[in-house]
Amino acid sequence: MSKLVIVGTVAFDAIETPFGKTDKILGGAATFIGLAASQFNVDGAIISIVGGDFPKEYIQLLEDKGMNVEGLEIVEDGKTFFWSGKYHNDMNTRDTLITELNVLEHFNPVIPEAYKNTEVLMLGNLHPLVQQAVIDQIPTRPKLVVLDTMNFWMDNALDDLLKVIAKVDVVTINDEEARQLTGEYSLVMAANKIREMGPEYVVIKKGENGALLFHKEEVFFAPALPLKEVFDPTGAGDSFAGGFTGYLAKTRDYSYKNIKNAVIYGSVLASFCVEKFGTERLLNVSRKEIQQRLLQFKSLTQFDIKIN
Amino acid sequence: MSKLVIVGTVAFDAIETPFGKTDKILGGAATFIGLAASQFNVDGAIISIVGGDFPKEYIQLLEDKGMNVEGLEIVEDGKTFFWSGKYHNDMNTRDTLITELNVLEHFNPVIPEAYKNTEVLMLGNLHPLVQQAVIDQIPTRPKLVVLDTMNFWMDNALDDLLKVIAKVDVVTINDEEARQLTGEYSLVMAANKIREMGPEYVVIKKGENGALLFHKEEVFFAPALPLKEVFDPTGAGDSFAGGFTGYLAKTRDYSYKNIKNAVIYGSVLASFCVEKFGTERLLNVSRKEIQQRLLQFKSLTQFDIKIN
Repeated sequence: MSKLVIVGTVAFDAIETPFGKTDKILGGAATFIGLAASQFNVDGAIISIVGGDFPKEYIQLLEDKGMNVEGLEIVEDGKTFFWSGKYHNDMNTRDTLITELNVLEHFNPVIPEAYKNTEVLMLGNLHPLVQQAVIDQIPTRPKLVVLDTMNFWMDNALDDLLKVIAKVDVVTINDEEARQLTGEYSLVMAANKIREMGPEYVVIKKGENGALLFHKEEVFFAPALPLKEVFDPTGAGDSFAGGFTGYLAKTRDYSYKNIKNAVIYGSVLASFCVEKFGTERLLNVSRKEIQQRLLQFKSLTQFDIKIN
Repeated sequence: MSKLVIVGTVAFDAIETPFGKTDKILGGAATFIGLAASQFNVDGAIISIVGGDFPKEYIQLLEDKGMNVEGLEIVEDGKTFFWSGKYHNDMNTRDTLITELNVLEHFNPVIPEAYKNTEVLMLGNLHPLVQQAVIDQIPTRPKLVVLDTMNFWMDNALDDLLKVIAKVDVVTINDEEARQLTGEYSLVMAANKIREMGPEYVVIKKGENGALLFHKEEVFFAPALPLKEVFDPTGAGDSFAGGFTGYLAKTRDYSYKNIKNAVIYGSVLASFCVEKFGTERLLNVSRKEIQQRLLQFKSLTQFDIKIN
């Protein structure tokens, strides 16, 4: 079993969609990434921070999925990071109602000794200096380093972000953020510019319009599965990252061909995530359901034209 | 060679994009459809109407591509339909600056005797009563009838539109129009409702986000090719329809499997259309370029995951 280190938030979310609303429930990038990656039986570790208000059952739940939580710091007299958002009717846009950083303001990630030789490192969306601090703790470079980020860091810590981007193999980013980061409207041009910053691979996430993988002159596309209803998009991008890195840590094949497969598995895990509030669906999805959905992705995209 | 009858506008367009602007150039749905379909060596006929101001060279150009123009009525003292539009910077939205219906206001389509036994009928975007009048002239039902429409007819002639939709095999429509027609936000739900109106197949066009094909419980997706720059989106949807119907008229196989292939060929032709102003690229694209682009679509979408 190869190792996967996941750095990111573990949080409370309160979500409102046209289908209903939740109280504070389990959320956070590292949570979604870890739950999605756990489908691949990897030896995963979550590096994050929570407050004393964070239920022990939630931590147990991550452990039950095979996640090592030695690197999950608990600040007993602190409060857990809290995000609240409301989705518009189209489910593609949302307003952030509340962001309470709480313990996240003073997060010094520490990788447990046993995971410093990790094969895959997934840097979830966090301050680029925190992402950098994690890279700095690993003596031998992992086989694959994946970084997710967002527009907030482009606005507030661009120099730090560019420094850490230069050190990773894969950047995952959404379409508007790719445009903001590069000043290019065309996603092909934007991906080229991001590759010039360092990463060999760029994944541009387009929500319900799928994801594009760029590598050298190649481009690969994975659609999002068309669903009768999208219940709650929260965590879809992180579930994608979890399926992506989990599959790669399991197969240990970092060729372009296999990274294409990882994009498909990322899309499969994301397609489950959005079916229920928060982590509910990821917690209950079965191996058989994942294989069935993979067949759906095949019939969605595969064709057979003879070229004369 | 099997027959393909194309009904739609033949027009002047004046286009402004961030890349430049044109004077009045050759445009119209039937023009784009015919030029795209002509790549498949079908016996095509264009049914439309123009004014005395329409250059004979343009008509010659359609004939040179193998299109029969007996059904292209010329009203010597009338003026050709004229549309002018300006694209925003994102190229996904546009403002219509001018619409002069001119001779189109009194268009009575007449199918030439030799084409009344057509195998494929493509009803381009026009008043649904005009589309209906074409169907009524064909004594034996074609193997495949495809209808394209737009929101204008939903607002102004919904009953007529629903009547003609009930008589066709395939509806092509864009995502916002599918939502408007059905009141469903989910495209899966919208396509189900349109299929309940009669058509066995529904193609939902999403512009730069590709096209979805719905049939029974199946769904197939063709991405748009990610391009470094989209020069002029005018006619992309019609080029899609031309590639789609041209390929089917050539192969004469109306199975779901082959209709998926037709969606890919539609996307291939649309990807060329947007590279230059108006019809310029379609007029010059070669068979070899089409085969090369088909290979690009394959590498864009095809993957090989072994499922245990």
